[in-house]
Amino acid sequence: MKKSLIALAVLAASGAAMAQSSVTLYGVLDTGLTYSKGDESVYGMTHVGGNVNSRLGFRGVEDLGNGLKATFNLEAGMGVDDGTDYFTGNGMAFRRTSTVGLEGGFGSVRLGRMLTSSYLAVNRYDAFGDTGIGASLAWNIPQTGYAPRTENAISYTSPNFSGFKIGAEYGFGEQQKASDKRYIGIGATYDNGPLSLGLGFDRLNGDTRNNTVGTENLTTWHLGAAYNFGVAKLMGFYKQSKDKDAGVGAAGDSVKFKTFGLGVTAPVGAAGEVRASYNHYRLSADVTGFSVPTFKANQLSLGYVHNLSKRTALYGTYAYLKNKNDSGVNMGLQLNGAMSGAGLSDSGAQHGLQVGVRHAF
Amino acid sequence: MKKSLIALAVLAASGAAMAQSSVTLYGVLDTGLTYSKGDESVYGMTHVGGNVNSRLGFRGVEDLGNGLKATFNLEAGMGVDDGTDYFTGNGMAFRRTSTVGLEGGFGSVRLGRMLTSSYLAVNRYDAFGDTGIGASLAWNIPQTGYAPRTENAISYTSPNFSGFKIGAEYGFGEQQKASDKRYIGIGATYDNGPLSLGLGFDRLNGDTRNNTVGTENLTTWHLGAAYNFGVAKLMGFYKQSKDKDAGVGAAGDSVKFKTFGLGVTAPVGAAGEVRASYNHYRLSADVTGFSVPTFKANQLSLGYVHNLSKRTALYGTYAYLKNKNDSGVNMGLQLNGAMSGAGLSDSGAQHGLQVGVRHAF
Amino acid sequence: MKKSLIALAVLAASGAAMAQSSVTLYGVLDTGLTYSKGDESVYGMTHVGGNVNSRLGFRGVEDLGNGLKATFNLEAGMGVDDGTDYFTGNGMAFRRTSTVGLEGGFGSVRLGRMLTSSYLAVNRYDAFGDTGIGASLAWNIPQTGYAPRTENAISYTSPNFSGFKIGAEYGFGEQQKASDKRYIGIGATYDNGPLSLGLGFDRLNGDTRNNTVGTENLTTWHLGAAYNFGVAKLMGFYKQSKDKDAGVGAAGDSVKFKTFGLGVTAPVGAAGEVRASYNHYRLSADVTGFSVPTFKANQLSLGYVHNLSKRTALYGTYAYLKNKNDSGVNMGLQLNGAMSGAGLSDSGAQHGLQVGVRHAF
Repeated sequence: MKKSLIALAVLAASGAAMAQSSVTLYGVLDTGLTYSKGDESVYGMTHVGGNVNSRLGFRGVEDLGNGLKATFNLEAGMGVDDGTDYFTGNGMAFRRTSTVGLEGGFGSVRLGRMLTSSYLAVNRYDAFGDTGIGASLAWNIPQTGYAPRTENAISYTSPNFSGFKIGAEYGFGEQQKASDKRYIGIGATYDNGPLSLGLGFDRLNGDTRNNTVGTENLTTWHLGAAYNFGVAKLMGFYKQSKDKDAGVGAAGDSVKFKTFGLGVTAPVGAAGEVRASYNHYRLSADVTGFSVPTFKANQLSLGYVHNLSKRTALYGTYAYLKNKNDSGVNMGLQLNGAMSGAGLSDSGAQHGLQVGVRHAF
Repeated sequence: MKKSLIALAVLAASGAAMAQSSVTLYGVLDTGLTYSKGDESVYGMTHVGGNVNSRLGFRGVEDLGNGLKATFNLEAGMGVDDGTDYFTGNGMAFRRTSTVGLEGGFGSVRLGRMLTSSYLAVNRYDAFGDTGIGASLAWNIPQTGYAPRTENAISYTSPNFSGFKIGAEYGFGEQQKASDKRYIGIGATYDNGPLSLGLGFDRLNGDTRNNTVGTENLTTWHLGAAYNFGVAKLMGFYKQSKDKDAGVGAAGDSVKFKTFGLGVTAPVGAAGEVRASYNHYRLSADVTGFSVPTFKANQLSLGYVHNLSKRTALYGTYAYLKNKNDSGVNMGLQLNGAMSGAGLSDSGAQHGLQVGVRHAF
Repeated sequence: MKKSLIALAVLAASGAAMAQSSVTLYGVLDTGLTYSKGDESVYGMTHVGGNVNSRLGFRGVEDLGNGLKATFNLEAGMGVDDGTDYFTGNGMAFRRTSTVGLEGGFGSVRLGRMLTSSYLAVNRYDAFGDTGIGASLAWNIPQTGYAPRTENAISYTSPNFSGFKIGAEYGFGEQQKASDKRYIGIGATYDNGPLSLGLGFDRLNGDTRNNTVGTENLTTWHLGAAYNFGVAKLMGFYKQSKDKDAGVGAAGDSVKFKTFGLGVTAPVGAAGEVRASYNHYRLSADVTGFSVPTFKANQLSLGYVHNLSKRTALYGTYAYLKNKNDSGVNMGLQLNGAMSGAGLSDSGAQHGLQVGVRHAF
């Protein structure tokens, strides 16, 4: 069985002209062991990824001349633990990214499904990059259903103006009432030497004909900043989501979720990096006829990444989460095979531990 | 994260011997905006494709010597708007094409799932290539359930005899009664300079143990022709399907669907092409105990394609459909996220508009 | 539409350094016609594969220096007959193999989903490689639910010590009771010149909270041997599975399934190979309150493979199965489109015939 090799990286002999029009196959495979403990405990093999979320993708660029380029990107997310897509729970779909677009002096326009500019402007101030057991729950708490991606969408990203960039997405709801299920969002970033700033705002409209909790008019704004002192990089962010007319209570009732996070990453030797973060969560519900308490919780995360090469790393992460006056915030299980109903404690302290390997190609 | 590049096209250094045994990764990504209006209106991002249906595939050929070759083709269809397969509605399956075969002086034999020779012989006389909002509904009207593909099938394609070719498929029903769900079809084409002719016939048997409308013994024949005058290419086709014992009424009752289409395509400048077509649809049902009227409708389509390169194009299409004495014929919505129940008018005039980008790699 | 070619095999110009870090696209496409006859008969196109099970995969290796390598393998199984994944019945998932790992002087460690070392140590003594209509049913009989793969697993494979190797897997059950659904297995092989030996043992625990037949504490051991006389290779194996507390009857009740198989393969001319095997099956159930007979059956299989090249072959297989005193053992239908409820005889003789083509790339 003669095998076909996909030529790696360089293609030195073919020269620059060819490199300008290329198709790239790439991927990240990240898994390892995850242990979670609350009132109950469960352990197994990490599903989505502990350091970088696993993925398999194709992307390409075609030089159209006059500074214009056609681009595409198709990227699926798969769990190495069982070989299934972690969006569909089954076969591979390009649910991480599916775009085709044009790029030029005006910036870039892409059509399809993609991470939003709003999310990308701020999630980078989580020291764990919103990945793994140490990640902030700011964008993942189930109560408000924040979605980092939109689909049926047009995305615009501006050129880089002295470190300043903006991006925006409009996702069609594709309903007869045009505002139903519509997404609109914007992100702005400033990156200049050691300083980095980001600001995002987005709104996801609900479906007025099919009320479901968590999708009715979710409005989010968040901002963050980082400064790289060389010996260490400090970062922080604040995020606030308001879920209005959330399908329970009376018209105008809403659920609010606020987070702030502080983090630090620091190189250790030539190949290592430590990461630490603190997150504070506060969820308050103003719903008629329901006596919903205010949830408060704090999380501490500590991690180490050891690079074996530019493409391959080993890592370990520990996270501790404590609910204060109730039970609203839970670590995710990060497993796929886990029995339904298995869960961490609804109250008290929760611990999570993750060790694993990340390999990119 | 070092990326792997898939070598493009030439592989000049490796010479002809290697090119004879190759594996090709290819794809087409086509999406944009679709607006449809009848009694109601809906708009959003095109799912399957407006100019060429989106796809991702692998294909290869191995030279076995003595003029014999082994071939394969795996091709999935995905909507760029949301990254899902438009056949499964979920993960990628090779539902556009999945074949392995042998090719030689005798022609080619392929096993698996493929477009039928009958369909391929005639769909090319639709000026819109049976794609997008401007396409003829001849092969897509739901009432008769015509399928352009067969599976569990053996396909034979003859060599080219002075422009004349035939192809045929036999698709196993894989039922205990061997004729149940069986497909059989044949297509013949003649292409010589400016002249092109095509003729197809096929029959899809139903499942006698599980009557469902639209699958009982659907017999179709169609033919078409085109002539390229240089300044413009004229084309036309006629198609007739008869759905016998369609699961309603009495034995022998049937539904007939007849279409004829006229079209023209013409180059505009170095990079443009205009397309226009007229389609007439007539559906008549002879079903005992049902008072089913005869549906009549007419459709006009107009489009323009502007090529940015050989691989990338922008396009726009407008289509107008008018039912005459009833409401049997509807434009497809061409969206994926659209709310179920959303639809165009059941009567009167319908309008469709599509603008988009098509990128091939 | 300019196509991208994936460079084949050699990449001679790029030298050894590059070959050490590579990503490979590979696949096998195998289908043809299958005819099965018992009391009833059905025929159609082979789904999974008649000679080698169809697949599409990516694999890679990165040289990390100091003898250490990072490896990965993603492999999906698809039926050429209809283009669907034969695990999911729908879109492609990497359910054949999904692993990332490290390899060095210590052997190799892989994480994810993979064929077990226990299975691999012995299935190679089936003359038909546990594939197609001629395969032994030792690992496929539905009554005991043996699984050749595990997931959420850590796999270790030792280096080769003078022909001796061992491998072991531990698959996390990911339940709160840690032993639930856990897999543990080990395989040992010895390969030296013409002699080959293999021994495997594994246990799959059930889910004590959700009793289902066939998954409660299935313990299997099997061993096999082969000797290659040059003119022919003789092989044989014995396998025994015990399914304890199988969800029926009283605690401690069990179902036992024993198989032995004898086989021979012999080259014929430069490009051919004949294969023959005999399998004996015996299933005995000791279940309180049920009067379950002992099933006995014998199977004879005969096949021929004709290689058109190293990558492409034609083959034909005939199999005959006879139940002795009951109806416990049935050939698989090997089709996908086949109507549910279609089946071979529950008693008496069953015949199977398969002809097809296998193409690897």
